[in-house]
Amino acid sequence: MIPDLPDGAVVVVFHSRRTAEDGASYAEMAERMDSLAREQPGFLGVRSVRDPHTGEGITVSYWRDDASARAWKQDAEHREAQRRGRDDWYADYSTVVAAVERHYSRSAE
Amino acid sequence: MIPDLPDGAVVVVFHSRRTAEDGASYAEMAERMDSLAREQPGFLGVRSVRDPHTGEGITVSYWRDDASARAWKQDAEHREAQRRGRDDWYADYSTVVAAVERHYSRSAE
Repeated sequence: MIPDLPDGAVVVVFHSRRTAEDGASYAEMAERMDSLAREQPGFLGVRSVRDPHTGEGITVSYWRDDASARAWKQDAEHREAQRRGRDDWYADYSTVVAAVERHYSRSAE
Repeated sequence: MIPDLPDGAVVVVFHSRRTAEDGASYAEMAERMDSLAREQPGFLGVRSVRDPHTGEGITVSYWRDDASARAWKQDAEHREAQRRGRDDWYADYSTVVAAVERHYSRSAE
């Protein structure tokens, strides 16, 4: 469920709550940002879940290091999406950037 | 959407995918663990989202420091829930523990 995480990996947690507006353009942007993130240097992986009933979502992306997480935040097309998010799509949101310390996984047989 | 995060705060990201089994006992456990977590020393906040269609969920909890995050993992009742999670409720899961470095939020007016 998570990528391999090298020493120094960074996790970015994005909490958001959608407004009711403009679902089609939002879905298009979300898909585009997912594709664009995957092309960035240092991108390791992303998981995103939204509850369709409450509108609450959590997106967790993993990065090789802090520099790559910062560079993605500054990407021009991503900045434009962030602006539209603030103005149109999100009732509220929070972003938390953190340094991975340990992790463990398990898959059923 | 996130609590106040003091210096030294820790974030725990729990990714999981549910099996199809035993929805009622799962829901009961999930509610109990949510209540129990909130009583722990050092607990700051938790947000949890699951997509009912895919079964994928992300729970993000925030802790005052690493010691409080570790203590919650070792709580006896929580350990029993973890065991049942492994055995019955989750097809797979991953936990990532990370040290908060920075964060920003915005609420619509």
